[in-house]
Amino acid sequence: MGIFDSGVGGLTVLRSCLAALSAEDFVYFGDTDKFPYGDRADDDLRERARLVGGWLTEAGAKLIVVACNTASAAALGTLQQELSIPVIGVMAPEARAAVQSTRNGRVGLMATEATVRSGSYERLILDNDAGVDVTSVACPALAPAIQRVEPYDDEIVRLVDEYTAPLREAGVDTVILGCTHYPLVEHLLRRMLPGVTLISSGEEIAREVTENLTRRELDRVDRLGTYRFACSGDAESFRAFGATFLQMPLGRIDEVDPSGLLAR
Amino acid sequence: MGIFDSGVGGLTVLRSCLAALSAEDFVYFGDTDKFPYGDRADDDLRERARLVGGWLTEAGAKLIVVACNTASAAALGTLQQELSIPVIGVMAPEARAAVQSTRNGRVGLMATEATVRSGSYERLILDNDAGVDVTSVACPALAPAIQRVEPYDDEIVRLVDEYTAPLREAGVDTVILGCTHYPLVEHLLRRMLPGVTLISSGEEIAREVTENLTRRELDRVDRLGTYRFACSGDAESFRAFGATFLQMPLGRIDEVDPSGLLAR
Repeated sequence: MGIFDSGVGGLTVLRSCLAALSAEDFVYFGDTDKFPYGDRADDDLRERARLVGGWLTEAGAKLIVVACNTASAAALGTLQQELSIPVIGVMAPEARAAVQSTRNGRVGLMATEATVRSGSYERLILDNDAGVDVTSVACPALAPAIQRVEPYDDEIVRLVDEYTAPLREAGVDTVILGCTHYPLVEHLLRRMLPGVTLISSGEEIAREVTENLTRRELDRVDRLGTYRFACSGDAESFRAFGATFLQMPLGRIDEVDPSGLLAR
Repeated sequence: MGIFDSGVGGLTVLRSCLAALSAEDFVYFGDTDKFPYGDRADDDLRERARLVGGWLTEAGAKLIVVACNTASAAALGTLQQELSIPVIGVMAPEARAAVQSTRNGRVGLMATEATVRSGSYERLILDNDAGVDVTSVACPALAPAIQRVEPYDDEIVRLVDEYTAPLREAGVDTVILGCTHYPLVEHLLRRMLPGVTLISSGEEIAREVTENLTRRELDRVDRLGTYRFACSGDAESFRAFGATFLQMPLGRIDEVDPSGLLAR
């Protein structure tokens, strides 16, 4: 299984997959040399996604998860068209789960500015149920605040309070965490959104991948799988930030230039 | 609400309570000067629990959670008899949840050596359902390994693998995490125990407290509660270890001598 993100955020997706799919082997690629993706043009992102997708296929992945909203929005279709293995994005499973979960038909979205602007989640939600009201909140400062090594300060509380205020006001009963960083402040989010169901990409992706492998009868049993990492930037910096996100040891991390599929 | 533990482990209980009971005010007492409780005599523990229980009552708690297995085993009954407010331990709610969750009647327990030796969980489980098979595993090295500041190394993986092996062998479908430290390696535990339901004290206590307050009509709504900390040892050391366990900022921490109810 291949998992692809611009940095360490997708490790919250990997940890859910490692917990739910313990027999599978995983390889995770963090394109840290190009992090963050938010500032890049769609053409650049498609080119990067092609390179990383090719590298993951070469590495033996039988399925690829694009665990990055920006890359999903820009390049998911391209990868699905060009690769011969299944490619799954984070947005569709979350949108479906939110529609299944809401009782009052009011769904909230917290995501980066680029993701909210793309309108992708809203479109996917309405495709599942055109009667759902969506309240989207761009949270530009939240992922950077979480990415810091010591994330739990008063600034985080202030940001979560500020960004959840419009969702409380709208009376949503379900909120999509539209960025892989947000599960790291799950307890704080639950506190600021009492009684609200939180949908996070890790659990939904793990469920989607499980279903996918079972239907294709590709699932393995009775073994403990392996996992390994590669990144296009500095491996030690990946390790330092990554442990908090993965909540497991990272082990070997290869520094890789995806354009040449060469270890540096 | 008062929460009491020998150290920072009970913060995993507090974080679940802060998420589930956002309107309540909490005060947490870590008896860090006497940490760890595991080596102390029952008489000592009862005396400590009396002092801390008295301090929490003075601090305005309307209900006390003993978020420490060792203190629960030694002193829960004493506190319940001597204090005029309700006192809840971690074990009974977990035992009940495990009995409700199991489908094949085989329940596992992971806990410290003292907790396993006390036989309290097993007794509580059999009180709920005498037909349940209990497999208890003492995990003496796990909580200390988790307590280290950088917890995610290969040693943790080895320990979790070793301690979960008898549970896999016994074919349990439900496992009680009988120590407040263990939720910090939840993903790793899920990976090593595929298909098994994990029962952790945080969620069960939050549920128990909610029910308790609702029945007594003591629950508050439409406000965001406060939380604060006190400990009998060094406040900065409490802060350093505590942030990982709480996953929220700790704010003010008072150093307190519970024997005199005096701030140092």
